[in-house]
Amino acid sequence: MSTTSTAMPEMMKAIRWHPPSFDIRVENIPVPQIQDPDDAIVKVTLAALCGSDLHVYRGHAGVDQIHTSGHEFIGEVVELGSNYGAHSQGRPALYSTLKVGNKVVSPFTVNCGECNVCRLGYTCRCPLSALFGSPALEGGQAQYVRVPKAGGTLFNLSDAKSWTSSLSDELKGKALAGIADSSLLMLADILPTGVFAALQAMNHPKVLPAVSGRPWPASFFPGDVSTTMLAEDRMLTFAIIGLGPVGLCASVSLLDMLSAQQLPYQIIAIDPVESRREKALAVYSKIEQEGKGLGKFVAQSIDDAKKTVADWTGGVGCTAVLEIVGNTSAISLAYDIVRPFGAIVSVGVHGEPQMPFTGRQLYNKNVSFDFGRCPARAMFPLAFDLLGA
Amino acid sequence: MSTTSTAMPEMMKAIRWHPPSFDIRVENIPVPQIQDPDDAIVKVTLAALCGSDLHVYRGHAGVDQIHTSGHEFIGEVVELGSNYGAHSQGRPALYSTLKVGNKVVSPFTVNCGECNVCRLGYTCRCPLSALFGSPALEGGQAQYVRVPKAGGTLFNLSDAKSWTSSLSDELKGKALAGIADSSLLMLADILPTGVFAALQAMNHPKVLPAVSGRPWPASFFPGDVSTTMLAEDRMLTFAIIGLGPVGLCASVSLLDMLSAQQLPYQIIAIDPVESRREKALAVYSKIEQEGKGLGKFVAQSIDDAKKTVADWTGGVGCTAVLEIVGNTSAISLAYDIVRPFGAIVSVGVHGEPQMPFTGRQLYNKNVSFDFGRCPARAMFPLAFDLLGA
Repeated sequence: MSTTSTAMPEMMKAIRWHPPSFDIRVENIPVPQIQDPDDAIVKVTLAALCGSDLHVYRGHAGVDQIHTSGHEFIGEVVELGSNYGAHSQGRPALYSTLKVGNKVVSPFTVNCGECNVCRLGYTCRCPLSALFGSPALEGGQAQYVRVPKAGGTLFNLSDAKSWTSSLSDELKGKALAGIADSSLLMLADILPTGVFAALQAMNHPKVLPAVSGRPWPASFFPGDVSTTMLAEDRMLTFAIIGLGPVGLCASVSLLDMLSAQQLPYQIIAIDPVESRREKALAVYSKIEQEGKGLGKFVAQSIDDAKKTVADWTGGVGCTAVLEIVGNTSAISLAYDIVRPFGAIVSVGVHGEPQMPFTGRQLYNKNVSFDFGRCPARAMFPLAFDLLGA
Repeated sequence: MSTTSTAMPEMMKAIRWHPPSFDIRVENIPVPQIQDPDDAIVKVTLAALCGSDLHVYRGHAGVDQIHTSGHEFIGEVVELGSNYGAHSQGRPALYSTLKVGNKVVSPFTVNCGECNVCRLGYTCRCPLSALFGSPALEGGQAQYVRVPKAGGTLFNLSDAKSWTSSLSDELKGKALAGIADSSLLMLADILPTGVFAALQAMNHPKVLPAVSGRPWPASFFPGDVSTTMLAEDRMLTFAIIGLGPVGLCASVSLLDMLSAQQLPYQIIAIDPVESRREKALAVYSKIEQEGKGLGKFVAQSIDDAKKTVADWTGGVGCTAVLEIVGNTSAISLAYDIVRPFGAIVSVGVHGEPQMPFTGRQLYNKNVSFDFGRCPARAMFPLAFDLLGA
């Protein structure tokens, strides 16, 4: 038994990718149905196109099966499997509280919310995870989409009390009322991924001495510490490589965190494309007007950026680098401009080339890396707070 | 003008390495002299041999110049440059307090203690850094050794008040009196390097949810958190790859930290050599007798260890892996047995082979790495506390 809002059509329009490349079709296919008692069917109100969709479109992703595209969507719940309702106690709260008619946003991957990986907050690596818009799971660039494990996966925009947040319920309501669907859609991937990059950079143990004013390894321990650190040692120099949508979200999130903690910073945003650099500068200009621009922010091409890093840091390098591209030249650039004992946070979707570093290079620079996909479901509350702030 | 204790001999015995390989000679060479006002001359009382000396000995390190070997030594200050004494205010305290006759231990690299890198605690990457026992700087396997920037570099064992520690001055004194020179010598490299590996693993942001019981990303923030985490999610599974002297020091340090925080753990210590595994088990047995063995500890060959990791973690993998070997097969094994969102801490000295990972592999497992050399000078107080505990 499942709960349905209204009679559903039998057929729908969907954007389907066909192998091997550059072949996208709008097709009529059957509306998805509940396959598992944990499923929900969502009527899509808005879907977006991600840079990684383009990898598939161009035939660069090793995909060889027809599927509906899209992993960023918001919509309305129109049907719920039989596991939803009052008898779902002991499971994630959404199994009890989600209702037909609720407005929802989905992270770009499924997560059960009930396994060890999900409980730790590493939702994107749930063993039951599947990427929407891949051969494993039909995507959201369609009129309807089936969401497996929806009680673990979805974020219920209609029930602000259902999620943890630093905003009060009243503020959540006000924020929600003032946020356009086109902005809420950013919650599906790009905004949490940007926040994820910034959060990892700001909280990396090798960044902590500058943030806390406590030198390594006193930075790990409470209590008084005698230190010879100077004010200038606390200057945080960040580079952001890649100023597409995720890079802009990472910039905004990083600036928000720096501003909240009133930390001194200098940021070098890097992209070879001038229009993207202009967009980044416009975003910073807006933040400056809000009185949150307490540091320096430039957007530069690669060669100019290398010079700026050297100038601004006396040749030492960046405290941390956010790598938001996902290819060999971007990760090499990150290595070149990071300081010894610096952190490289890479959220770009990398491919098959081997990492372009020798072990000696990594040893000699004491470099740290954090690689991988954003656990978007776990990051939703932080991302929503930033959107609503 | 420099200060000297007694008349120094003109010549001394030193262990000299000759290129290209397998050629070590005991030779008579001139006793080193003060070359810079910041120098000290140390009469070596005990020196040790490190695994990385063997890389040079075997001709694997790309070294082509004759030099005195050795980067682990303790000894007595016999001569100080003219920058030492009361007129050194504003410089690191040791320039004012170090005296001829003091017993000292040196980290394996020089550090000035006065630059931005040193002030942040990243002493082994000081721009003035040089490795003892390399073409850049004569080593400590000799009767005397010149220590550049000694006021930044040395650790004064005769003046317990001169260093930060969790031990009281009285306890420091008692500990010092009870610690043999052969143990104090471990402070030069292997013990701080082991502590460095354990400290990074225990404090990695991706290990923090299990340590704190607060899921990602709440693990970064104070305040109440609603969590579905279970007691079993807090089990820390560590692997230690390489059970040479540094691996044993890392094991002891890790067990000490886990015991101090009373955290649940299971440790898989890995080495292909049976005698090393037996040594590791003997060390753990001693710790168990002290009532600090609150978890599980096995020492296994590579294949057995892989099975144990799978069994103990339901196929998920280790929370963190300490890689203490420094070659391609060790870092590959670390990747294979670490969990998604796990941390790999690599303190092994890596060589020229390219890292054996594609970007896709690193993205797909959300893996974190911390590479590199221990900032031994900054780690001395923690390492001494462990030695004295």
